[in-house]
Amino acid sequence: MKAYIKEKIDNYKHQNKNRARLLINCPDQPGIVATVSKFLYDHEANIIESSQYTADPEGGEFFIRIEFECPNLKEKANQLETDFQLIANNFDMDWKFTYVFEVKKMAVFVSKEPHCLLELLWEWQSGDLMADISLVISNHEVARDMVESLGVPYYYIPANKDIREEVEQKQLQLLKKYDVDVIVLARYMQILTPKFVAQHENYIINIHHSFLPAFIGANPYERAYNRGVKLIGATSHYVTNDLDEGPIIEQDISRVDHKDNAADMKKIGQSIERSVLSRAIKWHLEDRIIVDRNKTIVF
Amino acid sequence: MKAYIKEKIDNYKHQNKNRARLLINCPDQPGIVATVSKFLYDHEANIIESSQYTADPEGGEFFIRIEFECPNLKEKANQLETDFQLIANNFDMDWKFTYVFEVKKMAVFVSKEPHCLLELLWEWQSGDLMADISLVISNHEVARDMVESLGVPYYYIPANKDIREEVEQKQLQLLKKYDVDVIVLARYMQILTPKFVAQHENYIINIHHSFLPAFIGANPYERAYNRGVKLIGATSHYVTNDLDEGPIIEQDISRVDHKDNAADMKKIGQSIERSVLSRAIKWHLEDRIIVDRNKTIVF
Amino acid sequence: MKAYIKEKIDNYKHQNKNRARLLINCPDQPGIVATVSKFLYDHEANIIESSQYTADPEGGEFFIRIEFECPNLKEKANQLETDFQLIANNFDMDWKFTYVFEVKKMAVFVSKEPHCLLELLWEWQSGDLMADISLVISNHEVARDMVESLGVPYYYIPANKDIREEVEQKQLQLLKKYDVDVIVLARYMQILTPKFVAQHENYIINIHHSFLPAFIGANPYERAYNRGVKLIGATSHYVTNDLDEGPIIEQDISRVDHKDNAADMKKIGQSIERSVLSRAIKWHLEDRIIVDRNKTIVF
Amino acid sequence: MKAYIKEKIDNYKHQNKNRARLLINCPDQPGIVATVSKFLYDHEANIIESSQYTADPEGGEFFIRIEFECPNLKEKANQLETDFQLIANNFDMDWKFTYVFEVKKMAVFVSKEPHCLLELLWEWQSGDLMADISLVISNHEVARDMVESLGVPYYYIPANKDIREEVEQKQLQLLKKYDVDVIVLARYMQILTPKFVAQHENYIINIHHSFLPAFIGANPYERAYNRGVKLIGATSHYVTNDLDEGPIIEQDISRVDHKDNAADMKKIGQSIERSVLSRAIKWHLEDRIIVDRNKTIVF
Repeated sequence: MKAYIKEKIDNYKHQNKNRARLLINCPDQPGIVATVSKFLYDHEANIIESSQYTADPEGGEFFIRIEFECPNLKEKANQLETDFQLIANNFDMDWKFTYVFEVKKMAVFVSKEPHCLLELLWEWQSGDLMADISLVISNHEVARDMVESLGVPYYYIPANKDIREEVEQKQLQLLKKYDVDVIVLARYMQILTPKFVAQHENYIINIHHSFLPAFIGANPYERAYNRGVKLIGATSHYVTNDLDEGPIIEQDISRVDHKDNAADMKKIGQSIERSVLSRAIKWHLEDRIIVDRNKTIVF
Repeated sequence: MKAYIKEKIDNYKHQNKNRARLLINCPDQPGIVATVSKFLYDHEANIIESSQYTADPEGGEFFIRIEFECPNLKEKANQLETDFQLIANNFDMDWKFTYVFEVKKMAVFVSKEPHCLLELLWEWQSGDLMADISLVISNHEVARDMVESLGVPYYYIPANKDIREEVEQKQLQLLKKYDVDVIVLARYMQILTPKFVAQHENYIINIHHSFLPAFIGANPYERAYNRGVKLIGATSHYVTNDLDEGPIIEQDISRVDHKDNAADMKKIGQSIERSVLSRAIKWHLEDRIIVDRNKTIVF
Repeated sequence: MKAYIKEKIDNYKHQNKNRARLLINCPDQPGIVATVSKFLYDHEANIIESSQYTADPEGGEFFIRIEFECPNLKEKANQLETDFQLIANNFDMDWKFTYVFEVKKMAVFVSKEPHCLLELLWEWQSGDLMADISLVISNHEVARDMVESLGVPYYYIPANKDIREEVEQKQLQLLKKYDVDVIVLARYMQILTPKFVAQHENYIINIHHSFLPAFIGANPYERAYNRGVKLIGATSHYVTNDLDEGPIIEQDISRVDHKDNAADMKKIGQSIERSVLSRAIKWHLEDRIIVDRNKTIVF
Repeated sequence: MKAYIKEKIDNYKHQNKNRARLLINCPDQPGIVATVSKFLYDHEANIIESSQYTADPEGGEFFIRIEFECPNLKEKANQLETDFQLIANNFDMDWKFTYVFEVKKMAVFVSKEPHCLLELLWEWQSGDLMADISLVISNHEVARDMVESLGVPYYYIPANKDIREEVEQKQLQLLKKYDVDVIVLARYMQILTPKFVAQHENYIINIHHSFLPAFIGANPYERAYNRGVKLIGATSHYVTNDLDEGPIIEQDISRVDHKDNAADMKKIGQSIERSVLSRAIKWHLEDRIIVDRNKTIVF
């Protein structure tokens, strides 16, 4: 990547060298917050932000996200996790620590329409999207110039439904080579195989160009036009093996009227797609999202 | 109705004694606007507001709504319509004149949840919804007090799917007795028979408590909750014999998050339903809507 | 009040007989959350919802709102507060416990325009606004019927700027008689004296019919129209002695265009005023708001 | 400019070789629409879109925008305008024909923050903003690479308030050289002299980073933060010699809360600025805006 972008990322890593997040879900019971906050206090961590949610106040699942500062975090991270395991066992917790200085490595998949990709690149190079955009993979060549001009490798892998597995083999090699943490489908119009999806559970983020569950599948703007809707929308969600049925992260809409034909709706919609995908990715990068079956909790 | 409401309506009629609207649709061709505006000018009508739309600039359907003032309109209305027939024939027009001083007579149907009805009553008594609310028909008694306190007759007609035709017989008699121009289903939870719908084409207005075409049918808030959507909505549409498939007049949405359960969504949604239905009805009362197959043009 | 409303309130009190909220602000330092959550755990309280905020991560003010369930709360409340005083002293806390079963007693002040009052009454009687609306005070008679029809006492106290203190004497007597917890100015168009305001710090809630700080003072819709704005708004805030300068609780806007004159803007604006004031009051009733100098933190 | 952009513009010109717009304002009187539409019909023009507005139905100003198709328009344009002068005289009209194939030449002024410029460039190169971006003028060098990579000349003219006239001399020469039709201040932070503004009445478009008339002048985000507002906004307006007081074209807002500091508000606001400025410019390019004293009519 370009030097000025790398410098922004390096500054961010340095500023956050002592910053981490702890995400937990477990069956609700008294004493969780008391125990976890005492643990952090005993480890000299200062809570900066904390959000919690209980799915059902009468004995449901408990979720919490805590962001904290801890001196000498890099040296202490291992011990922190080891010590926390005891608490986790007592409360039957799913949990993870994430470290803000470990900036996530991102792969962006795109097909012919580059608007979502370009929004991400623009936010990225201006320092508003804190990720390491490691590579872009596309079944078209349209976005090559823009991507390479920012110093990001661009891989052209032609794709169609008959060569799906072969294409994914190449993609998987690249994802492995770049050690990718999150995959963004920025209007990538190929369907992924169940095997591919299963290997990246809850870190493939897609943008669908409709207000789901309306207009699942192909050509949503044409179908919205034909139905005569007065609002169109876009939805960002994690990819699962049920088409457009994965956990929804974010949605938004824009008003249209009878004067807007399908092409107008597409243009209006692209603007929504850009902002919805961008918000969803930022929340993912900030570890704000916990997936609870087919839903997301966004802290 | 109460005297202070009647007075508001009478004032409105008087203020608009020379005000009318002309709605036209016809195949597009050159000269329509020139001909119609010359016609109005020759009849001493002054155009106050005019909106037009061509479905497809290359030979599609043309739609126009003109609001105008014309001195001594009541005396001249018949002649105006007779004279206009010649133009209409030349251009193969569907057309109608409506007279603003002819305030529309409205029947409101409601079941157990009175929030939409009450919004209408409140706007009505404050002079913001210019209709003659002639009667309310309900298969429950919950709203009787509120309706009668404004001097509006309330008819309780128990209903269920086994006695549908018998129920509709009673309703039709009432609609005839009160000479009703528009029927509002303000959360009326009974399905109407095809026969009933056919007799009132494009003047039964329904509010559906979802963002159509998402969550067609029953229990949309529960289904929205189960799907984990981040926005919920409401849709007002004309009733046809395809359930929740009629021409959409207006839609709106509100943001929800993981903390909102189905009951919260219902509450949030009621607020959207109220405003969406109210806007749709006002546009209908102002003759702003032309139905074009399964869509609406809202001028 | 009417029996069916009283029944709703009584049910709510019963359901929440063990529910309380703890609001704290204090200088930030490590260990606050650990200490407070241990305190609650030791007193058998289960945290249902918790939100916190640190004004400046480097040594600023810390704010937290915790909602919890505690068995036999009514018996234990005194002991809870006594025990908490020790912690509060250690951390130099401003704090209060509020008890959900102690439904707040509300006085509504209104002048000529009843739209905000009516929204509150409607939400209240439908169970969506959980307060004890103890009385309505007005310098006009317009809203008497609606208020009394719900069984709420209505006090007509003519007012003008020359008799301000005398008027407020009468109002203060009523507020004392009804032991009022919160005062809502639902479009009450008289200015309150500094003395009156000082006696009710942070519990007089006003609705101003503009998007503050634009159009402070009188006739905001006319001034908005004259300025040619494309959006109009409303603002709900706590009343201080600087006109329209108190801490903002909530704001919202609606789109207008060149066709809307000042009267249209007023109508559109009334709808915003209704929803903005209603949201602000609900947050206040749920003890979600902490005032920090001239700002609010809304949890 | 780059070849692929030029190709898009050339296609657009060709597709619109017979498309024009007629904008009129004049004192309201009967017969305007009839006369104008007859004129167009007699000249073989087919009306595609027409919007009108009367400032005050009782004898106010009348405004109309008509978009039409006319065969062999380029040959007939002169005659059209000559013939129309007779009508214009009769009705005391301000009027102009604009030709869609005459794509407007635009200069963009920018200072240090490139987000608005980049939004315009992105929409432009993707064909969504139909203008000829002839040059960019800046008092900083930050945006040079991006601008030049699209083949647009970039002029660096250092500026400060002490050398204002000298700077404007250079700018005026460039504007003349490129024969510019519209000037966009895409976050250009220098104040223009009254002389400069007077020479470009109603075609300098600015973006102000607040919801005007709130926070006129410098540092609006900081002042918004200090006031504790719950919504921030942006305003696009024509530049006049009253700072931030020119006719407003478009405004929009976004929600903020107590967690957002001034820097967060700035980031959130940049996204609003981008879309508001972009919409305002498009309406200007499509000749949808008529300035009526200190207001705009946007058709």
